This record gives sequence, C-alpha cells and structure tokens, in this order.
Amino acid sequence: MAKYSLGIDFGTLSARALLVDVETGREVATSVSDYRHGVLDETLAATGAKLPPDWALQDPGDYLEAMEAAVRDVLRSSGVPPGQVIGIGVDFTACTMLPLDAAGQPLCFDAAWRANPHAYVKLWKHHAAQPEANLINEVAAARGESFPARYGGKISSEWFFPKALQILDEAPEVYAAAARLMEAGDWIVLQLTGRETRNACTAGYKAMWEKAGGFPSRDYFAALAPAFADVVDEKMIRDISPIGAKAGELTPAMAARLGLAPGTAVGVANVDAHVAVPAATVTREGVMVMIMGTSTCHMVLGREPKIVEGMCGYVEDGILPGFFGFEAGQSCVGDHFAWFAESCVPAAYEQEASRRGISAHDLLSERAAALKPGESGLIALDWWNGNRSVLVDADLTGLMLGMTLNTKPEEMYRALIEATAFGTRVIIEAFQGNGVAVDEIVACGGLPERNELLMQIYWGAVAAGSSAGGYDTIHEAAEKMARVKDRTFRPNAAAHAVYDRLFAEYRKLHDFFGRGGNDVMKTLKAMRG
Amino acid sequence: MAKYSLGIDFGTLSARALLVDVETGREVATSVSDYRHGVLDETLAATGAKLPPDWALQDPGDYLEAMEAAVRDVLRSSGVPPGQVIGIGVDFTACTMLPLDAAGQPLCFDAAWRANPHAYVKLWKHHAAQPEANLINEVAAARGESFPARYGGKISSEWFFPKALQILDEAPEVYAAAARLMEAGDWIVLQLTGRETRNACTAGYKAMWEKAGGFPSRDYFAALAPAFADVVDEKMIRDISPIGAKAGELTPAMAARLGLAPGTAVGVANVDAHVAVPAATVTREGVMVMIMGTSTCHMVLGREPKIVEGMCGYVEDGILPGFFGFEAGQSCVGDHFAWFAESCVPAAYEQEASRRGISAHDLLSERAAALKPGESGLIALDWWNGNRSVLVDADLTGLMLGMTLNTKPEEMYRALIEATAFGTRVIIEAFQGNGVAVDEIVACGGLPERNELLMQIYWGAVAAGSSAGGYDTIHEAAEKMARVKDRTFRPNAAAHAVYDRLFAEYRKLHDFFGRGGNDVMKTLKAMRG
Repeated sequence: MAKYSLGIDFGTLSARALLVDVETGREVATSVSDYRHGVLDETLAATGAKLPPDWALQDPGDYLEAMEAAVRDVLRSSGVPPGQVIGIGVDFTACTMLPLDAAGQPLCFDAAWRANPHAYVKLWKHHAAQPEANLINEVAAARGESFPARYGGKISSEWFFPKALQILDEAPEVYAAAARLMEAGDWIVLQLTGRETRNACTAGYKAMWEKAGGFPSRDYFAALAPAFADVVDEKMIRDISPIGAKAGELTPAMAARLGLAPGTAVGVANVDAHVAVPAATVTREGVMVMIMGTSTCHMVLGREPKIVEGMCGYVEDGILPGFFGFEAGQSCVGDHFAWFAESCVPAAYEQEASRRGISAHDLLSERAAALKPGESGLIALDWWNGNRSVLVDADLTGLMLGMTLNTKPEEMYRALIEATAFGTRVIIEAFQGNGVAVDEIVACGGLPERNELLMQIYWGAVAAGSSAGGYDTIHEAAEKMARVKDRTFRPNAAAHAVYDRLFAEYRKLHDFFGRGGNDVMKTLKAMRG
Repeated sequence: MAKYSLGIDFGTLSARALLVDVETGREVATSVSDYRHGVLDETLAATGAKLPPDWALQDPGDYLEAMEAAVRDVLRSSGVPPGQVIGIGVDFTACTMLPLDAAGQPLCFDAAWRANPHAYVKLWKHHAAQPEANLINEVAAARGESFPARYGGKISSEWFFPKALQILDEAPEVYAAAARLMEAGDWIVLQLTGRETRNACTAGYKAMWEKAGGFPSRDYFAALAPAFADVVDEKMIRDISPIGAKAGELTPAMAARLGLAPGTAVGVANVDAHVAVPAATVTREGVMVMIMGTSTCHMVLGREPKIVEGMCGYVEDGILPGFFGFEAGQSCVGDHFAWFAESCVPAAYEQEASRRGISAHDLLSERAAALKPGESGLIALDWWNGNRSVLVDADLTGLMLGMTLNTKPEEMYRALIEATAFGTRVIIEAFQGNGVAVDEIVACGGLPERNELLMQIYWGAVAAGSSAGGYDTIHEAAEKMARVKDRTFRPNAAAHAVYDRLFAEYRKLHDFFGRGGNDVMKTLKAMRG
C-alpha cells in the first residue's frame, strides 16, 4: 500500500499543497489557494485605515483558510485516503512573524485588537522597522557583539528582532499583551500539533540565534530598550528544533478540518528557500543550490563555521542537521529582466513578439542567444536593486557600459544576464576564498526552467570560469520535491575563455564602484532627495 | 530697387538655394533638390559594382543638377529678376574632394574612368582612408612635425591628405591622371566662375594648411610616399583665398544654365558648419557658436593662436578674416536621442505618442521636462560614437549609471541630454583654460529649434555652470542667414547648483574612463573582434 507525504508551502500570496509518493518521489497532486486578503500594504482590511509607507502585513486567518482549501483539494483530486498520508512538512516565507495570546491565537483574531495593525502578521517584506534595525546594529557595534559577523556585518530590517522591537516602540500595549512573538511557520505547526516549536532555520537566519551560543545576551537586549531585556524568555522559547525533526502529531480538531487522520506526524517548519536544498537532493558539502527567481538565494552546506564577506548568514543545523548552512543572495536577478522588458523594449520588438505569439522575453532571449560572448562590447553591474552579497549595500545602483549607436536591445538584455552571472561568480569566489567549498552547482526556481539562454550563459560565466572550484556541471533542479531534472549543462571552452576576460573587467568595476573607488552611485542617490 | 544675395548650401543628400534681401535680411525664397544618386556607399551606380566597407562616394554631376533645379526654383517662385541678384555664396560639406582633369572636369565624367570608384567624389564621411591617416600621423610624430598640435594631435581619416594618399595607394593611375585634387566646394566655384580658388576654411581645417606656414614640407610628403612628395604643387594650388573674398564672376555658360546674369559676383566657398558663425551674426571674439544636430560643432573666434586639448583645429582666417577660428566637436548629440528613440522606447510610450499625434521624442521630452535636475539619480557619458573633443578617441563608448528598478525611459533620455550638455561644458572649460575666451553662447542648427527641453538643460548644465566665463545668456540662432531668433534662455539658480554637482561627477567619470584610469571600453571594443 502506497504511502504519501504532504508538503504545505506558504508563499507571499498563496499556499500550495503537494502530495508525493514517498517511495517513488512521484507527485500525486498539487493545489494552490490564494490568501483572501493578499498583502496588506496600503490599508488594513478590517478597518480600511491607511497604513504608513513600507508596511506589509497579512491576516493569519488567510493562512488557515488557504491551507484547508489546498489540502482538501489534493486529497480529493488524488483520491488518496487520509490514512496513507504519513507525514506533513511545512515551509513558510521568513521572517514573517506575529503576536499571539497565551492560547496561541493571533492577537488580531481578538476584537479588542482587530483595529491595531501591530496585532497582525508582519510579512517578510515589511520594511518599516529600519530605525529599529539601525539601533540593533549600532548597539551591537558599540558593545562589540560577535553575532553580526555571522550575518555579513549587518542585521536587516526584515528580520525578527527589528520587527519585535518596532511593536514595543510603536504599540507597547500590543507588545505587553503578546504572550508570544512567533514565526508564522512555527505558528502553523502549533496550529497543526498544539505544540510550540521554534525551528533552527528561522531562529538562526532571522533571529540572531546560533546552536553554540544561543540568542544574544539579556544585557544586549536591555541596551536596546529596558522593556526588551527579556524578550527571549517572555515572548519566545529557547528550545530550538533542528530541521527534519518531528514537531508533533496532528490534533483531532485540525485533522477534521483538513480531512486528514489524527496523529499524522508533522515536521518542524522551515524557510521556503532553504527547503530547496534537500528538495534538490543536496545533502552534502560542496554543492551550491541556487534558487533563482526575481532574486537569487545561494545555499551551501559546510562542516565548519566560516566568516565569508557579505553573507546573509551561516547557521549550524540551519538547513540540514549536522551541517552549517551558508546563505548568500543577489537582490535582483529576474527583476532586472522584468525591468528591461517593461522599460526598454521597442514597439517593433513587441509587434514581432505579438505576431509570433511569443513574449518579449522570448524574443529578446532568442536574439540574445544568437550573439557570441563579448560580441556586443557591453558590460553591466547588476545592482538595479542594490547589492546583497558580497557588498551588502542597498545604496548601490546599476551601471551599463560600452553602448554605441549600433547597440541593440538584445545586446543590453544579454549584458544584464551576464552581469547577474558575474555577480554569482563573485559570491562563489568569496565562499571558495574563505574555505567553504563549492564544487558543484544546482540551479532551481522559476528562472532556470524558463530560460535556456540564462543557463548557458551561467555556464560559461560562472561554472567553467572557476579555476579553483573544478566543478564541471550545473544541474538544473526543478522546484519539485526530491525530483532533480536530468539536465546538465556542459562547458564551451571558447565561451568561458571570453567570459574569464569579461569577468576580470566586471570585477574591476565591481570593486571600483562597490568599494569606494568612486562613490558616485551614493552621491547621486543622495541627491535624489 | 531691392538687391538679393543667393546662397547655395550643398549638404550630404541635397542642395538648397536661398534668396535673401540684402538690405532687410528677409528670406525671399528657398528650395531644396535631392542628389539623384544620394550617397554611393554600397555600390557604384554606373556599374553596379560593390564598394568595400567604409566607402562613401558621390557623383559630382548630381551637384550641378541639384543646384540648377534649386536655383531656378527660387528665381521662379520669388519672381526676382536675375539682374537684382548681386552675389552668390557657396557652402559645402568638407572634406568632400574629387580628382579633376586639366580642364577642371571630374575624371568620373570621362567614360575611361567611369568604372573606377577612385575617379568619384570622396564624401566627408568616406572612412576607408584610415590606414593612410595612421601613416600620416605616425610619420608626423616620427619627424616631430608641428602641424598635428593645431588639430588636437591627430589628423582624421575624413580629411584631405588621407583621401588623396588613398587614391595614390589604391589607384595610382587615377592619381596620375588627376591634374587637380580639389574640395567639392572649390570645384563648384570653379564651375561657376571658371577660376580656380582654394578656400582657407577647408585648406586650414581639412588640409593641414596654415596662413603663416602654408602646407607641410615636401620632405614630409615624400616620407609618406615618394610619389606623394609634390602633391601640393602637382595637384593643388598654394594660393589660398580668405573667407568673404570674391572668387570671380559668373560665366555666361553657367549664367545661362542657372537663369542668372553673367558677371554676378561669386564668393569663395566655405564649409557648411563654419558659415554658421557669420550667419548667426557672430563677428567677434568670445562667442561660441554651437551648430547642434546629429553631432555638434563648436566654433569660436580668437585673435591669437592657442593650443587647446582635443580641438578639431584652429585656422587663421578659417572662419572670418582677421581671426583665428577655433573648432571643437561632439561626435554624437542628436544621434544619441535618435538611438534612444529607436532602441529604448517601450510600446506603451509609442502607443501614447501615436494616440496623441506626437512623436516619441516629444513624449519623452514632455515627461523628461517634468523631472527636476538630479531627480533620476542617473548620469551618462555621451560617448555612443566615441569622443571627438577633448579626448579625440573614437574607441570610447557609452556609459550610463544609477539605474534602479524604478528607472523610467524619460529619465534615461534626460540623462543623455544632460551628458551632451556636460560634454559641451568640458569643451568650453578647455577653451577657457587655454586662453580662448568664451563669454557667450549662440546655439543654432536643427536641435535647438526643435527641442525646448534641451536648451533649458544646456542652460543649467553648461552656461550658468561656468564660474570662469561669466556669460549669462544662450542665444538661439535659427539656421537662417543673418537672422538670429530673439530667444534668450536665462538661468535658474537652483537647477545650476545641482548641475554643478552632477558635472563634478561627470568630470570624474570622464577623466577616469577617458584618460586611462580604466580602459575597459577599449578592452571590450577590441574583444568584439
């Protein structure tokens, strides 16, 4: 009798359920359900009140509703009986956090708090806690705290403690009423099992925790604000669960709601990007998993802690138990191409694409694919949305160089693809140069599947270009549980010799504009006022 | 009884005749006639034979035919009797040159030479004499010749002696058969008057001649090629006529052909761009006349010779008698905007422009005009077609910097306009820094008339930005004889304070990429192969 595993993936706009045959890895059914209120970034749905700039909230009721719809749909469409579903795994965007009462209910479910925006979920892209992030960084620097080094030197406003501190600063009554401040992924697991867990991945990557030393000290939190001194002991738990551990079993009430069997095993939650590593069957050191979409996450497993310039962080047991999980990122990848397609494609191209029934991206890719490396004479810095790794500088901006009166849109499009590939290579070389092996690359996410040209360029520009790494394949992994597409890109010696020379020029521009040789990007950005 | 002056302007594609009342300056009539064969840059019309790359020829018969049509048309439409036309002035593109027989007839009129491309006119933009230009520069440098200093250090392949030497190199039989190698403008004057003249403007700016020292020495020419030693005495004349001088009188034969009176005074020819200086009523030192079109020519009169970095040249009596005429240039101005409109305007913009019955340029200008200086955070180097002044480097290429995911097409368009303004400012500061006064600017040509935004940006970025110059107006001169439009642009203090700061950034990038700080543009261009 077949057994099945149920994955529930909570994204920014929807929840997706996926039923997989545990023996064969075959996907049996999948279903997506949108959140009723989407992202609350202009007004609070409950009251219609306007939200300040940079806010991004969600209603946690939407998660339960979407989960129920998606899970019931995969059970119905697959015909799999509840008894044959032997385990449930949850991944969630992060840091996406919310305040709960003592019973584990979101404060915003309570009519008393329904009109207070701080009672809702702060979504990962809620950027209004920048003053708190600045304070967290300043106080850490002043006190010589060691944790920032694990995060490339800076805590982001997207992470847990800036968001928690913003609640204390702006809504102390909500902070006081909250028995818990919890990651939404952990809250879903609490709803499923009735047991409180805190997963190592979000604790490590988003909440300044490490396996060896735990959270920062009470003194440090007290220095941020006296009332914040006991945030860990008052609002969180110190018992952190590694990835892959069992969180508990499905409660009868939740089993009834979802149509599953009570007692079904539920794993601890994980971050959506980080689950891609085991999902791509990567369970060893030396393999970089790149999740490529609008932005790119780079994940590598290692056996030892290493300080690597500009990393988003490394966390022991953060991706897989027994490993240090290293993470880096490029803040703008697919977004570059989307910007270009929206802002720089002439009408004649649109007309041709439309006539042929293809997208502007397809037409640009087709024409760009006909070019040889170096043929356009163009080079770009892929900083349209700043630089996350290795420079960690949101104030850097884009550059393109080499244009002539004969420069064509497809040449600029290709230069942008090449620039993102070179950005990846800078990250790989930073890992390698600091003792984190990268011998092989697995690319997954939406972009590699859709864009053959991109993968070919990454080959020449990233993989084959590395003299140190010695890896000779990029595997393309579909974004599907444990099913790696059998697609391997192999080197073209002529292309990567050219890319080596182009990369040398990229590196010079990268260091000149990114490390203070000429701060024109910041000067201009400051002048924008 | 009114008296009239007839101007005949030979452009790249057509001849234009213009009849002006000499007392009032009123334009009485104008007429344009296209050259039958246009530019011969792919095949030779007479034989259909394919021309090599970089060739650009014309058929001199087209000049006569177009002149006749245009002149007869203005006489007919104006009703002005031939006897009331008291003088004829000719301007021509330069260096546009051709081989003649002893009777002054183009060799290509002779059936014996009709199939030989070297028997035709080499148009100003014939670029196939680069090997000869290189030799001319190398030999001059090796011999320590003084003339290159007058031309910013380098002779261009577009000029007279490279073209003449190419005939000797590639078609010695044509060279031998040519009694004269002549500028087309001087040839037209020869046709009109029967008298051979050589005008100081083309001799000075295009043929390495100076009033004080004449042409380079026989030894120098011999060092280029023994058969070239006597090129001046065998193929040219040493008697150079200043601008404004009378060349002779209209012959009866040509008078009959054109419908004019025999004996009408004819002036010596001049270069089309350079006639704009007196045409804009500029007859004194300190005024820079900018002829702005696809490229920009900058002309200033001075009383003394000065060496200015990267000038196209200075020539005594070259623009007006009694003055040294200084010339600089930007090789790409309107061409930038044309490239942008063709390559970077999204379909949505085209649709809006089309719906409103305006051009893409108009729409971009309208949106760009709504931006404040510095608001976009963008800066560009205006080198899409290399840099003529002051860097004199055709291998430089374009740069744009500061792009984000919010960058709009109109912001990039405005950054290109600003870049050309900053390029002008570099030229003005080079003049001023080397003792050539620039106290006032007169802008003429097609661009200023069509583009209000451009003039406003030039104001803030060029004129008001000069602390040394102290001029406080840019006059806009229409491209019409002696009729300056009464249009004066006045400063906006806030805008030019911002432009001063932007220009400081432009200058840093200009010097870094233009003077060897990073030769990436040349490296990439060389890689294009």
